[in-house]
Amino acid sequence: MQVYLNGKFIPDSEATIPVTDRGFIFGDGVYEVIRVIDGRLFREKEHLDRLKEGLAGLQINVKPDQLQSLSKNMHDLLDRNSLLKGEATLYLQITRGAASPRTHTFPEPEVEPTIFLSTTPFIPHRDLHESGTDAITLPDLRWARCHLKTVNLLPNILARQQAVDAGVDSAVMIRDGMITESPNANIFGVRQGILYTYPDSPYILSGITRQLVFELAEELSIPVKTIPILEKDLFDLDELFFSGTTTDIQPVVEIDGKQLGGGKPGDIVRRIQKAFRQELYGVSDA
Amino acid sequence: MQVYLNGKFIPDSEATIPVTDRGFIFGDGVYEVIRVIDGRLFREKEHLDRLKEGLAGLQINVKPDQLQSLSKNMHDLLDRNSLLKGEATLYLQITRGAASPRTHTFPEPEVEPTIFLSTTPFIPHRDLHESGTDAITLPDLRWARCHLKTVNLLPNILARQQAVDAGVDSAVMIRDGMITESPNANIFGVRQGILYTYPDSPYILSGITRQLVFELAEELSIPVKTIPILEKDLFDLDELFFSGTTTDIQPVVEIDGKQLGGGKPGDIVRRIQKAFRQELYGVSDA
Repeated sequence: MQVYLNGKFIPDSEATIPVTDRGFIFGDGVYEVIRVIDGRLFREKEHLDRLKEGLAGLQINVKPDQLQSLSKNMHDLLDRNSLLKGEATLYLQITRGAASPRTHTFPEPEVEPTIFLSTTPFIPHRDLHESGTDAITLPDLRWARCHLKTVNLLPNILARQQAVDAGVDSAVMIRDGMITESPNANIFGVRQGILYTYPDSPYILSGITRQLVFELAEELSIPVKTIPILEKDLFDLDELFFSGTTTDIQPVVEIDGKQLGGGKPGDIVRRIQKAFRQELYGVSDA
Repeated sequence: MQVYLNGKFIPDSEATIPVTDRGFIFGDGVYEVIRVIDGRLFREKEHLDRLKEGLAGLQINVKPDQLQSLSKNMHDLLDRNSLLKGEATLYLQITRGAASPRTHTFPEPEVEPTIFLSTTPFIPHRDLHESGTDAITLPDLRWARCHLKTVNLLPNILARQQAVDAGVDSAVMIRDGMITESPNANIFGVRQGILYTYPDSPYILSGITRQLVFELAEELSIPVKTIPILEKDLFDLDELFFSGTTTDIQPVVEIDGKQLGGGKPGDIVRRIQKAFRQELYGVSDA
C-alpha cells in the first residue's frame, strides 16, 4: 500500500514523521475518514468542508493550493492502491506540523502543516446492521469542543475499549444526564415515530452521516427533533441507532444488558437503513 | 543534539516515528517534563511515579526493564548532549506504539510502546518571577481526566495561544465557577495568610511542583486549604501564583486587566519562592 505524505506518494512502510510533529507531541491536528465506493468518495465535499472548519477552529493555516489538491491526491492514492473497485476508507490527517523547541503556543514563524492520506480496504458490518448491536452507558468525559474532529481522541478510544472489555460492541455516552454520542458515531432515538438526537453543539461532532439521516428522514416524512434524549428516558425509546461513516446505520438493541425496543431493530431504522444504502451505493437493494 | 528513541541514541534530525504511531493518530500517550540542574533530574522519582500512574490509567504496558532503564537513559542523554552543567529540561513521552490498521480499540496483539526522550537547555523566567505576570480568565474546556498527563493537549495549547493573542502571558482557567489551572501550571491563591488550591481530582493535574509547595508551606507554617477558589472571589485574594516545572513559582499580579494584590507579588509568594529555589538549587540565594 502507498500513502500520501507532504506532497509525495510513498510506501506505507517508509512513511514517517519527525518526533517533533505537533500531532505526536500535542495531538494538534484534525482528521477525516471518508467512505469509498468503487473509487467514489462518498460525501467528499461535506468531509472537506468539515475539515476546513476544523482547521479554522485550530487556526492551522493550510495553503489554498494544498487544500485544492487534496481531492486529486485522494483519488490518485485510491488509484495507486487499486481501490477504484469495491469498498474502502480514506483517512486524511492534517497537523500543525513539526516544530522545535516544544512550546504550547503556535510556532513562530509558522511551520508547514503535515498532510497525510492513507487508504484501507473496507468491509461493512452487515451482520451488525441486520441483528443490531449492544452497548453500555458510560460518562462522556470528552472536552467541550467535540464539534471539532481533532486527533485528541483519548476519551473516545478509552470508552470504546471499556465497552469491548465489558463484552459489548460500543458505548452510549452521557453528559449531564443526556445522551450525546458513541465513541465513534452519532446516536438517534425513536419514540412514537419521531427521531430524536442531540442538537448541534460543542458537545457532539456533527456527523456527515448524521446530516444524511436528517435528509433521508425528510424524504421519508419521518419527523426529527434535535432534542437530547435523557438518560432516564433511554428505555422508553422504541428504537435507538448509531450513525457514522464506518458504522453506517446500526441498530442498538441492548444497552447495559437490558433489551431496547424488544431486542430487535425497529421499523424506522429499517426504513432509514434502506434509504441510506440506496444513497451510499446508488442502487436500491445493495 | 541527540535524542533517545526506542532503545537508540540518535541525532534529533533523524528521529522519526511511523505515521501509524498512536501518538500521532490519537494522542494515545503520556509525557513528563523534568527540570535538570547540573545534570540532576529534579524530583525524578516523583515524575517517574506519575508517569507510571499515567501509563496505568491508559493501560499502556511498558516492560519493567524498559521502565527501569529510563533513569539511566535520561542521564546518558544529558551527558551526550553536554547538559551535565547548567539548566535544562528533559522531555519524556511514551505512546501505545505504532499499529495498523487504525482502530479505536487497543491493538491486538499488543505492540511495542514508543519511548522518546529529548533535552533542551533551559533559562528560568527570572524576570517574571520577580515582576509577576498577567493572565486572562478562560473557560476550562478540558476533558474529565486531567489528572492523567497525556499528550491530548489541544485545550491547553489553544488556551495558552488565546492568552498570548490577548497580549498576556497565560490564562486562569475556570470550570463550573471554580479556578482549576493555567494551561500549563497549577494555581494557588492566598487570602489572609492561607493558601488555597483546587483539590486533587480528575479536573486538575497533580503537579510535582504543586506537591512541593505543600511541603514548603508546611515547613514555613503557612496553612493550606485544598478548597477551590471561586471565580467570584478571585479579586478578594491577596495573592495568586502559578506553580509548575518550567514555570517555577510565578506570581500573577494582573488578571483580565485588573490588578490583583495591589499589582505586586505578595509576601507569601516571596517566602515560597525563596524556599523553592533553595530546594531546586540546593543553596539559599541562587
